[in-house]
Amino acid sequence: MANQNNQILKNTNAQILDEFNASIMFDKELYAQDIRGSIAHSQMLAQQGILTSEEQKAIETGLLQVKEEIESGEFKFTLAYEDIHMAVETRLTEIIGEPGKRLHTARSRNDQVATDFRLYVQDKSLSIKEQLKELIETFVNVAGKYTTTLIPGMTHLQHAQPLNFGFHLLAYANMFKRDYERFESSYDRNNYCPLGSAALAGTPHNINRELTSSKLGFISPTLHAMDTVSDRDFALEILFNISTTMMHISRISEELILWSSYEFQFVRMSDEYATTSSIMPQKKNPDVPELLRGKTGRVYGNLISLLTVMKGLPLAYNKDTQEDKEGVFDSVKTVEISISILNEVIKTMIVNVEKMEQACKIGHLTATDLADYLVQKQNMPFRTAYYITKDVVALANKLNKDISELNIYEIRSANEELKNVSDEIVMYLDLRNSMNARNSFGGTSTIQTESQIKFFEEWLKNI
Amino acid sequence: MANQNNQILKNTNAQILDEFNASIMFDKELYAQDIRGSIAHSQMLAQQGILTSEEQKAIETGLLQVKEEIESGEFKFTLAYEDIHMAVETRLTEIIGEPGKRLHTARSRNDQVATDFRLYVQDKSLSIKEQLKELIETFVNVAGKYTTTLIPGMTHLQHAQPLNFGFHLLAYANMFKRDYERFESSYDRNNYCPLGSAALAGTPHNINRELTSSKLGFISPTLHAMDTVSDRDFALEILFNISTTMMHISRISEELILWSSYEFQFVRMSDEYATTSSIMPQKKNPDVPELLRGKTGRVYGNLISLLTVMKGLPLAYNKDTQEDKEGVFDSVKTVEISISILNEVIKTMIVNVEKMEQACKIGHLTATDLADYLVQKQNMPFRTAYYITKDVVALANKLNKDISELNIYEIRSANEELKNVSDEIVMYLDLRNSMNARNSFGGTSTIQTESQIKFFEEWLKNI
Amino acid sequence: MANQNNQILKNTNAQILDEFNASIMFDKELYAQDIRGSIAHSQMLAQQGILTSEEQKAIETGLLQVKEEIESGEFKFTLAYEDIHMAVETRLTEIIGEPGKRLHTARSRNDQVATDFRLYVQDKSLSIKEQLKELIETFVNVAGKYTTTLIPGMTHLQHAQPLNFGFHLLAYANMFKRDYERFESSYDRNNYCPLGSAALAGTPHNINRELTSSKLGFISPTLHAMDTVSDRDFALEILFNISTTMMHISRISEELILWSSYEFQFVRMSDEYATTSSIMPQKKNPDVPELLRGKTGRVYGNLISLLTVMKGLPLAYNKDTQEDKEGVFDSVKTVEISISILNEVIKTMIVNVEKMEQACKIGHLTATDLADYLVQKQNMPFRTAYYITKDVVALANKLNKDISELNIYEIRSANEELKNVSDEIVMYLDLRNSMNARNSFGGTSTIQTESQIKFFEEWLKNI
Amino acid sequence: MANQNNQILKNTNAQILDEFNASIMFDKELYAQDIRGSIAHSQMLAQQGILTSEEQKAIETGLLQVKEEIESGEFKFTLAYEDIHMAVETRLTEIIGEPGKRLHTARSRNDQVATDFRLYVQDKSLSIKEQLKELIETFVNVAGKYTTTLIPGMTHLQHAQPLNFGFHLLAYANMFKRDYERFESSYDRNNYCPLGSAALAGTPHNINRELTSSKLGFISPTLHAMDTVSDRDFALEILFNISTTMMHISRISEELILWSSYEFQFVRMSDEYATTSSIMPQKKNPDVPELLRGKTGRVYGNLISLLTVMKGLPLAYNKDTQEDKEGVFDSVKTVEISISILNEVIKTMIVNVEKMEQACKIGHLTATDLADYLVQKQNMPFRTAYYITKDVVALANKLNKDISELNIYEIRSANEELKNVSDEIVMYLDLRNSMNARNSFGGTSTIQTESQIKFFEEWLKNI
Repeated sequence: MANQNNQILKNTNAQILDEFNASIMFDKELYAQDIRGSIAHSQMLAQQGILTSEEQKAIETGLLQVKEEIESGEFKFTLAYEDIHMAVETRLTEIIGEPGKRLHTARSRNDQVATDFRLYVQDKSLSIKEQLKELIETFVNVAGKYTTTLIPGMTHLQHAQPLNFGFHLLAYANMFKRDYERFESSYDRNNYCPLGSAALAGTPHNINRELTSSKLGFISPTLHAMDTVSDRDFALEILFNISTTMMHISRISEELILWSSYEFQFVRMSDEYATTSSIMPQKKNPDVPELLRGKTGRVYGNLISLLTVMKGLPLAYNKDTQEDKEGVFDSVKTVEISISILNEVIKTMIVNVEKMEQACKIGHLTATDLADYLVQKQNMPFRTAYYITKDVVALANKLNKDISELNIYEIRSANEELKNVSDEIVMYLDLRNSMNARNSFGGTSTIQTESQIKFFEEWLKNI
Repeated sequence: MANQNNQILKNTNAQILDEFNASIMFDKELYAQDIRGSIAHSQMLAQQGILTSEEQKAIETGLLQVKEEIESGEFKFTLAYEDIHMAVETRLTEIIGEPGKRLHTARSRNDQVATDFRLYVQDKSLSIKEQLKELIETFVNVAGKYTTTLIPGMTHLQHAQPLNFGFHLLAYANMFKRDYERFESSYDRNNYCPLGSAALAGTPHNINRELTSSKLGFISPTLHAMDTVSDRDFALEILFNISTTMMHISRISEELILWSSYEFQFVRMSDEYATTSSIMPQKKNPDVPELLRGKTGRVYGNLISLLTVMKGLPLAYNKDTQEDKEGVFDSVKTVEISISILNEVIKTMIVNVEKMEQACKIGHLTATDLADYLVQKQNMPFRTAYYITKDVVALANKLNKDISELNIYEIRSANEELKNVSDEIVMYLDLRNSMNARNSFGGTSTIQTESQIKFFEEWLKNI
Repeated sequence: MANQNNQILKNTNAQILDEFNASIMFDKELYAQDIRGSIAHSQMLAQQGILTSEEQKAIETGLLQVKEEIESGEFKFTLAYEDIHMAVETRLTEIIGEPGKRLHTARSRNDQVATDFRLYVQDKSLSIKEQLKELIETFVNVAGKYTTTLIPGMTHLQHAQPLNFGFHLLAYANMFKRDYERFESSYDRNNYCPLGSAALAGTPHNINRELTSSKLGFISPTLHAMDTVSDRDFALEILFNISTTMMHISRISEELILWSSYEFQFVRMSDEYATTSSIMPQKKNPDVPELLRGKTGRVYGNLISLLTVMKGLPLAYNKDTQEDKEGVFDSVKTVEISISILNEVIKTMIVNVEKMEQACKIGHLTATDLADYLVQKQNMPFRTAYYITKDVVALANKLNKDISELNIYEIRSANEELKNVSDEIVMYLDLRNSMNARNSFGGTSTIQTESQIKFFEEWLKNI
Repeated sequence: MANQNNQILKNTNAQILDEFNASIMFDKELYAQDIRGSIAHSQMLAQQGILTSEEQKAIETGLLQVKEEIESGEFKFTLAYEDIHMAVETRLTEIIGEPGKRLHTARSRNDQVATDFRLYVQDKSLSIKEQLKELIETFVNVAGKYTTTLIPGMTHLQHAQPLNFGFHLLAYANMFKRDYERFESSYDRNNYCPLGSAALAGTPHNINRELTSSKLGFISPTLHAMDTVSDRDFALEILFNISTTMMHISRISEELILWSSYEFQFVRMSDEYATTSSIMPQKKNPDVPELLRGKTGRVYGNLISLLTVMKGLPLAYNKDTQEDKEGVFDSVKTVEISISILNEVIKTMIVNVEKMEQACKIGHLTATDLADYLVQKQNMPFRTAYYITKDVVALANKLNKDISELNIYEIRSANEELKNVSDEIVMYLDLRNSMNARNSFGGTSTIQTESQIKFFEEWLKNI
């Protein structure tokens, strides 16, 4: 009886242990990459005479059948398979017998998993890049509609200078362009094939790594077997790239939340992207941008997780590294859905032009224009012009006006030095003029904004 | 009396507040970049006719004097200056009067700080790259001495296959090469000039951003003013690059600590890089690699700090961003000293060849060679060869030998299927042969190792 | 010549190495704790007969002199001392000779540094608790002034229900109370004395750890020597406690930034705690809350740093642990100045009661009151009452009014089911009534708010 | 046709959006807590006369049926339910009709989710505490078997002093005891009931929060409604507690990995807890401790995730907070399985006493004993005794012996000052004597170790 209980206990422990050790429940995500890698490997083995062409054919057909079984849901993943590599190989051998056992010649679990995971990261880098491209396109398109719409440019969440809303949106196109470039760069830097590194030291078989590499779309084989099986830089890079992308997403999200508030009312989320209270149909909670902002946390967490895992690991392979995948899968899914949804949010948001433009009349946004005018046209030193401007602002406050609403007589009365000032100054205090005056390269003027839109349209066409 | 106390209290608060707000005590690190940026800006202003050439000359001479005063220690930084930009401009104006006030024309603190900080990050990216190059050189040189020295290759910290020690060291050359490439890539991606973005929207002045940009060694001006003043991607990138570099350093450090233990005794730190106990001169604590390993923590922390700061910040400039610098300075200094010291540690470590080679005789390291032999030469399926190998290992254990020490008669007796096996099998079980047999591209054989050393020598010559 | 160069190079390396290894430049922060610990240790040694009372007296007098020299600035810290313990002991021995060398009997650097650092953490836990107490007091006092001032309570940054502003502020008193409790709890949990653990295994000397422990204000000695010298849980705990405190500070900071915007205008920072633009005196940048929010990043970073350092360290002492201090010092200083400054910001902020109350009239804040009324007084199911409320809101929107501004006739006309509703319903839609109606324990009613203020006043008196 | 495509696209977007917004797929984990909370809430409502007792009875019976349906797998969770609260309430109303709709009276999704999640965290804090208790018990029991087994105590991974292995294991009992205490402390600190806080401001209904609180096993209701719905400190605390627990687990894991290596051979994992290579049955990869060490990364990541999410959130509820649960669920599951498995690993590991004791003869572990002897018995100053010891060590090295193996004549010949030294010195150099000599409180002597085991046995009995 006691023995029986011990046996049950032992079984329970064994079950827990299997769950603990096995990666199959998450690395099944890699089935397509695993099969792709195995086919390439078998083709190379055949070409090198290590497999006969009949064996290779059997293997390839068998692997494609396994793939189909997985995709149709016919194949059932269980803990017993331990990992995706075992699952595929076991099923393959059930189907084709003997040759299935020869597939593993001249490779090891270590280079196989490194290849599968790298293929996944490379695939996803490309698809995220595509998504970013679409997102940039959306920002550019929407920006194109608002190149003359005024919005208060903020620093410290305080009104600072009048911008056009198109210009504001293009700031994000620039951020996502850098993200795009980072994915491109890490893709290129890691586009080398691990297969053939074997356990950690290469293999005595007469393999052709160039061949496998080119069949899998890599530039060339990795240089060093031991480095290769313990390298997870490519995974860290995608985690970091996703972190900066989500950080940028969190910034536009923050702005969308602010802009949706009663206090701002600059934009309204389209009905699909805001939850409405059942009582108050006009109330729209910006749940979507809030979640987007919140999801930044998890991708930061995934980055720090893998950095922690890798710290201080001796060479070459250690089982700790099995912890590399879930975080990457989670970050990839998070950024994919986040870009996708942000894209729709931006496309469908309702912009309240009137509110934006009204808001520009608060805060004397053209105060620096006045100072700049005095410097440029009256040749005052910059710091001096500041003090005069201060007086004009003070007067406007007394009159309960924004300085953009002052007439020439009011302006001239503000400070002794202004008493003969040309009436063109009124134009300099005008909000739209002010926005258009910032016409330096990269500035907010409608001209610069439109030229930047053209730049992006060109760029999008060429990538 | 109460009033007087209130006044004192107020002063104390003011003092604390100044400390809290001011960045001068750390951003003085940027003095050289600030002055470099200001000189370029003044030259552009002069060329555009915004400053006279006399004014520009006065400014440039004045700025160089300020630089000298700082470098000689004559200039005293105090909280009153608030930040490095104010410090330099204030002192400049003391020296040259009026024109000093004109320097700030057509720029703002926002683009100025963005420029200074970016110049710093770019400068440091280049110098860290140089250091990494030296470090790689050291690994390659030391590797060159040990391309025939056997060392047990480990997976799971268990002996797995015989390697040569040169090959083992080259794994790190590969890691640091990737680090090198990341610094190179982020340098290129961020090599754009913020100056002229002004506060957030550009400037109405007729500036020439191309000119400033080229004077400062950038490719071209940044595209978008508002994005530019709120962008800290370049700082995040250097923090991430440093994190992966330190992660790699933590891995070789872990190995050096293990290798220095009584249990391994593979290497000894040179006397300078180990602390000796005063009683036990033979005892050498690997303090240096331990500290190197520990310092990984702080650079990870600095990365997560800035990611946290940036999360959810609305555009454009927010004071939160002032928190960007200290972490970068700290990570830069940490990685600089770490590379520098690791370089010396590797150069000067004493390798115990005998211990390494002895260690290879534990663990039947050539067991996979035996299996591979059976597959290749006897055409057995891979999985079948495994079971036969198992019997040979069992026999060796019974005889208290390593399988590399078995003679042909012993081998033949281990399993029915081996009874007629050719005596060449003995050679396949030899440790050095085994190492050299792994001659696939990127493998551990002396030939591959030496060819990889040549590759690196070439690469180092050309970068 | 080459030799000479080598020597110079060697010296340079030695210098860098000293900088790298030495902790003196930051652990000098612990001088007072080091001297306090040494005095207690010497007193115990004397009582146990291990030192003569003359020796002990010389040591104690000498240590107090070293302390004075440090505090007066007379003592110069240099790299040569390596760490604070060596610095103090070396100077002590210079002053008193022979007995100075006996001080180190029955202790090791390992338990000494563990004691010094723990004393520091304990000291700071107490002082931060005191600061939190003051901060809570401030929130409670300011809350007391605004228990009848309406402010829109927000969810999703959307107006949700009318609160009183005192109630809103008390939410923070509750957060900081939990922080207080966490510091209290970690203080108690770690209040055990490491001294006497020696290097890792205790000492053969006949020491009395109870005595040292009680002299230093600890509850009792730590239980296990080896655990003690490698334990840094107490440091992780203070880093975590500071992280949650700063997280709470970041939340009130975010609110202060929002409330200071033109869009909200609920509060204005006092002149000392906002930077004004030199041109626009009315413009106040909320730099202080922005910096407070930003500083959250660095304390999160310090937490993750030490967690990273400690991961996977074998027992007992490793040099990695030297990396434990700078992060703790930085987080402690950050939270100290942050609490201190937030305290002043809250005390001195100017509340715009009118703006807050006006804002409550946007968003039909009493819609749920209407639904609640129908449930309670008309006995409708909750979900049904919602649909009727929806009609009332729709009517108000049509009339361009807030529902709190509807009269009884308008209400009755909104939905068939309301045609005979009692006119008391008007009262239920009143904003102030609504706020006061939420009178459940912990609710926003003025009564509950004032009762909670009393609770806090009592609590503050008793801690 | 275009319209149709648009419709399909819209549907696809809607599907993605639902997935993005919905929490049901992970918060279903909270079903038991949700139902427990709802039953308590309904009972309170009935007692307050807000529900009739028939309604309450129907609700309670209905909820228990829903629970059964969920546990039997009959109930299917779909995205349409959005979250667990909606799922339960919807199903309840299907079963019992009208009264189901009344359950939500006087509560909101905000306090409901806060209650469910807090109940979960509290439940798990208790069960993790129980697991830690068992783990401590295991360490104490195993320690009890090895209180006289010598093992080299290490600092810097270098042999330092002889310990007994029981003592070494007890270091971990101490760590896990602190972890236990942290879970206990956070449980107590957060044991307050959120229900009745409603959306953010309490409720106008005449509820009795004390009653609900006591029915759910809390100490009392939370103090402040708005704080309560936005507070996630309890979640951060469990994430931090799990992080330190896993950090401790990573340390014993590191030691197990080292001890399992060929170089150490101090312990062997039992067959279940090591994977054996199919070829080499004697080879045991310490996969389990490697995974345990690796899993530290993910719990650190989860902590930093939630800290990031909470940073800078304005009051009260924001959708970002929905990101609080997955990380907590993941960390909880990770620590549960990790403790469970570590427990078995420690119970079943095979200790190689002979190897441990042999290892003590390397490194002159009794060198400090010699120095201590000279201080205690010969009254030399500590620093002086060091230099003599150095000579003895030098002699031993010359003789190729460990100092514990020197005879009295050898010792006397090592240094002039020792020429008449008593032969009792030999005893002081004996390894076992040395271990037992460290008999100070918390020291490694068998007596201290056994007394500490008794302490733990008592402690375990009383908690």
